[in-house]
Amino acid sequence: MAVYTTVDDLALARFLSAYDLGDVRSFAGIAEGVENSNYLLRTTKAHYILTLYEKRVDAHDLPFFMEVMTHLASKGMSCPLPVAARDGSILRELMDRPCAIFSFLDGTSSRYPNRSKCRALGQSLAELHLNATDINRNRQNALGPVSWQPLLDSVGQRANEIAPKMQNMAQDRLNSILSAWPQDLPRGIIHADLFPNNVLFIGDNLTGVIDFYFACEDILAYDVGICLNSWCFEADGSFNLTKSRALIRGYQAVRPLSEAEIAAIPVLAAGSAMRFFLTRLYDWLHTPKDALVSPKDPMEYWAILRFHQSVSGVGAYGFD
Amino acid sequence: MAVYTTVDDLALARFLSAYDLGDVRSFAGIAEGVENSNYLLRTTKAHYILTLYEKRVDAHDLPFFMEVMTHLASKGMSCPLPVAARDGSILRELMDRPCAIFSFLDGTSSRYPNRSKCRALGQSLAELHLNATDINRNRQNALGPVSWQPLLDSVGQRANEIAPKMQNMAQDRLNSILSAWPQDLPRGIIHADLFPNNVLFIGDNLTGVIDFYFACEDILAYDVGICLNSWCFEADGSFNLTKSRALIRGYQAVRPLSEAEIAAIPVLAAGSAMRFFLTRLYDWLHTPKDALVSPKDPMEYWAILRFHQSVSGVGAYGFD
Repeated sequence: MAVYTTVDDLALARFLSAYDLGDVRSFAGIAEGVENSNYLLRTTKAHYILTLYEKRVDAHDLPFFMEVMTHLASKGMSCPLPVAARDGSILRELMDRPCAIFSFLDGTSSRYPNRSKCRALGQSLAELHLNATDINRNRQNALGPVSWQPLLDSVGQRANEIAPKMQNMAQDRLNSILSAWPQDLPRGIIHADLFPNNVLFIGDNLTGVIDFYFACEDILAYDVGICLNSWCFEADGSFNLTKSRALIRGYQAVRPLSEAEIAAIPVLAAGSAMRFFLTRLYDWLHTPKDALVSPKDPMEYWAILRFHQSVSGVGAYGFD
Repeated sequence: MAVYTTVDDLALARFLSAYDLGDVRSFAGIAEGVENSNYLLRTTKAHYILTLYEKRVDAHDLPFFMEVMTHLASKGMSCPLPVAARDGSILRELMDRPCAIFSFLDGTSSRYPNRSKCRALGQSLAELHLNATDINRNRQNALGPVSWQPLLDSVGQRANEIAPKMQNMAQDRLNSILSAWPQDLPRGIIHADLFPNNVLFIGDNLTGVIDFYFACEDILAYDVGICLNSWCFEADGSFNLTKSRALIRGYQAVRPLSEAEIAAIPVLAAGSAMRFFLTRLYDWLHTPKDALVSPKDPMEYWAILRFHQSVSGVGAYGFD
């Protein structure tokens, strides 16, 4: 839930005078994303998204995010295309915040994606990985494996507020993940947050991949782990092998995984579950009880983590 | 800032199957209104607004609001037109909440409306009053004059938290307003909340009047007072006579005010200022300090109230 900054009509008109986007027909703050303020802008030419970057986003990362989107869109991927002002600039300023305008993508996100959507997602994820290979800029993964121990330390004993003995249990599982973490797998630009709410569909056709604000350089197959976790577990916590198989087949149809990558899927998926468990745990403990936005349940990801550490082999994910 | 209820893709598809609105192209929660959850729905046919009524709205009032909008739209006014489902029903249910779909109106609201916009607003307000005369249903003004003393009592001594001696000062001013309150002026359906954020323009053309959820039966000229307060005071608290004159001329071009109505404008405007002062004061004292939405400053309306009680005659509003 967002829109932290209000943009009035005069400020908007002044700002848009630097662009060639036609006349404004409507303008509304939309409740998408938690890091930024987003507006749906409709002009006589087209629909656009105007994003104002709030304090939680590091302004130094913005040129990287713009390049990722510009680059992927130029390769034909359905992702938001940053729109340049008349002077060629993409990152501009409005209400004292950095901001950018993007092409609008049709489609709606799917809360419980079916098998066809999982396959389409796998395919798009592989295309993203391949298309991103020649991006010049880079960004380290601020929430990668090296961040997990400090994150758990910062929570400390308060981890036990969510479940008895959680501090010790999480430490044990983190130790086993980090000791098994693969070192020599193919790396590249990953999305790192490709949850179902960041993918748009019309029917089962994938029409958009959005929200690149966690994109970074990391192990490519780690991104597959993130998607297995967010796309293939049902609301009751059960793992849907049919969806997992569809997602993996979609991915492999575009970018076949090596044997080493496949063998690492359980630990990569467990690591991804640890990452979201820890950030959710942190948010859970740091959100005021009466906040409008209720934090997501960390225990959902604890259960996912336990699943990955309990599987006996990659057959559990639908690999043949 | 709104969107309290999340509508997922499956629930939306199931819900829309009762309508003939074409296929969904996009669907986004928008940050408009504070009482309800609003979504912008774009289909292959048109743009719509889907509104879910949250607990703050009394469900018993909804048929009245639907009738006001349906009736005004049928008279050619630019207000949201409730869209019926295939079975003819307008009020339906989604996510366990009453809801309705409306036609989407182009335009953007104006934070600091100029003279032309004030004139257009006055004209539309008068059209609303005339067009609403043959509405069958009725709704008492829950925030009318009889509610002000109980509202001030409920705040009690805490009024002094906003300014020294405010409880006594507000009581004195309320006494003088209520003792001078006019009894025999023309009554009818009023909008009761026609602030600039509820009126849409393209250029200086008024393209929409929205948010009828305070509409009720009351003194027609009281609605003029509400608009004078919300449209004609500048950000620095000064009263803009040019805008007031434009607003009043726009109104009188459609519905001339009687001498009794004109004479009552100062007390009606003061009463309107008292109403918004009191509700803002209440919200100010009841909003948690760390809430995402900061309450509006009651003192803005205290200053407006003092202005109206200080004027020497209706010439101050631009009446000839």
